[in-house]
Amino acid sequence: MSATNSYLINGSFNQAISPFDRGFSYGDGVFRTLKIINGQPQHWPQHYQKLVADCAAISIVSPSAELLISDMLQLFNPDEIAVAKIMITRGEGERGYAPPAVTTPTRVIIKSSLPKYAQSNYTQGVALHVCNTRLNAQPKLAGIKHMNRLENVLARMEWKSESIFDGLMLDAADNVIECTMSNIFARFGDDLITPDLSQCGVAGITRQQIIDHAKPLELNVKTAPLSIERLLKADEIVTCNSLYGAFQVNKIGTQLVHTADLAKRIRELLAHD
Amino acid sequence: MSATNSYLINGSFNQAISPFDRGFSYGDGVFRTLKIINGQPQHWPQHYQKLVADCAAISIVSPSAELLISDMLQLFNPDEIAVAKIMITRGEGERGYAPPAVTTPTRVIIKSSLPKYAQSNYTQGVALHVCNTRLNAQPKLAGIKHMNRLENVLARMEWKSESIFDGLMLDAADNVIECTMSNIFARFGDDLITPDLSQCGVAGITRQQIIDHAKPLELNVKTAPLSIERLLKADEIVTCNSLYGAFQVNKIGTQLVHTADLAKRIRELLAHD
Repeated sequence: MSATNSYLINGSFNQAISPFDRGFSYGDGVFRTLKIINGQPQHWPQHYQKLVADCAAISIVSPSAELLISDMLQLFNPDEIAVAKIMITRGEGERGYAPPAVTTPTRVIIKSSLPKYAQSNYTQGVALHVCNTRLNAQPKLAGIKHMNRLENVLARMEWKSESIFDGLMLDAADNVIECTMSNIFARFGDDLITPDLSQCGVAGITRQQIIDHAKPLELNVKTAPLSIERLLKADEIVTCNSLYGAFQVNKIGTQLVHTADLAKRIRELLAHD
Repeated sequence: MSATNSYLINGSFNQAISPFDRGFSYGDGVFRTLKIINGQPQHWPQHYQKLVADCAAISIVSPSAELLISDMLQLFNPDEIAVAKIMITRGEGERGYAPPAVTTPTRVIIKSSLPKYAQSNYTQGVALHVCNTRLNAQPKLAGIKHMNRLENVLARMEWKSESIFDGLMLDAADNVIECTMSNIFARFGDDLITPDLSQCGVAGITRQQIIDHAKPLELNVKTAPLSIERLLKADEIVTCNSLYGAFQVNKIGTQLVHTADLAKRIRELLAHD
């Protein structure tokens, strides 16, 4: 797991995390997962903007883009295809929730292999489990990709079958919010709905790119509450994230879902973004 | 911060945390804070029982009591008064929320100084800030002292004045739940109410000891929902945790609170438990 040169901590190899790091003690930090192609972080401006915003939401000053790019140049070869996980924590602190008056954020970049997605994910779509674990409402943390992810962990532990690609997560009121590692869109005629994330969920940058650049899809993109009952009546459903782009959903729980070409069109859209 | 011999990781000095540790990535772990007097962990059976239960709630198998006691014998001198923070995480794992099929929990014990509480905390009581940050409802994690503590961090960052001892945390429906680092009890005549923690909050062992051994107090101890409006009408209010025992609350926000001898009686109770 700790293969040589597979990660950098504060720009250096052969470092480790202090048990005093508040990322460890309290999950007091944020992260990003992005695709590296030929050594280049994909959609970097969007990822960096979101990293800065997520840090700011919990009063952490993000390291500069220059520093992170310099780290990535150290960590990834120019011909490499891989995944970068960037974690920024508030840094070290004594016991107790109050952060020190002055903190130095810890930055970690981990390299891992790009998952090998089954060809059928692209051609036939993917199946979702409906998670029993609900997402709680916390407007102060909603949308942020922070390091308090026990809900996602518990949700992901609910299934073991490899035929399930991701788990659909609802809030306490049966609204669809997202999947454990993906955002979700549902098409109803000419409307493309993605759940409102003002109370919970992670607002991924792929979701945002679809919202911002949907014009070629010729659909009315809307952010709105979306009940599970309504989702199951959608004409098409897609999941999305920064690593795979978009997949058509073909099954939710035991219910089959109609598939067409929306995920393919979104992948094309993202490729040109 | 990382003074020599101030912590043990998996029973060894001079270790650090891997960035692959799921405690770091996701806050995927639990912790305990306990007082060490003359090298002895206070109320150890209760702390260990709670540690095991909290681990089990998120499907981690806790290290044995023997292992933790052996760690504490290494870390604390027989004449030492200090604080032990025990953290147990799910262990290391690759990127992704799914834990590996086999995981080895990481155990960390950190030694720190016992906070120096002002004498006036004992004689006159303490003031509480009313936090703007609310505790979200998540029945699967309620009561557990897990490492997803961003809400407490955000709440604790709301005040800087040293005249404030702790912050009162409410749920979204204006029910009092706890303080950032303490539980709370309110006396109404012969009734002693502590908030119901079935939806959120941390069920501390001092709170549980008060519930279990309240007989000498000659009060009817009840766990019940408690609105902030009702709390402010209490005859007496006390906060409690494993380090200081119990303190009388003399002020909540700008409102003065009547004080009497409940905290003192609870401290006596805990000393004999």
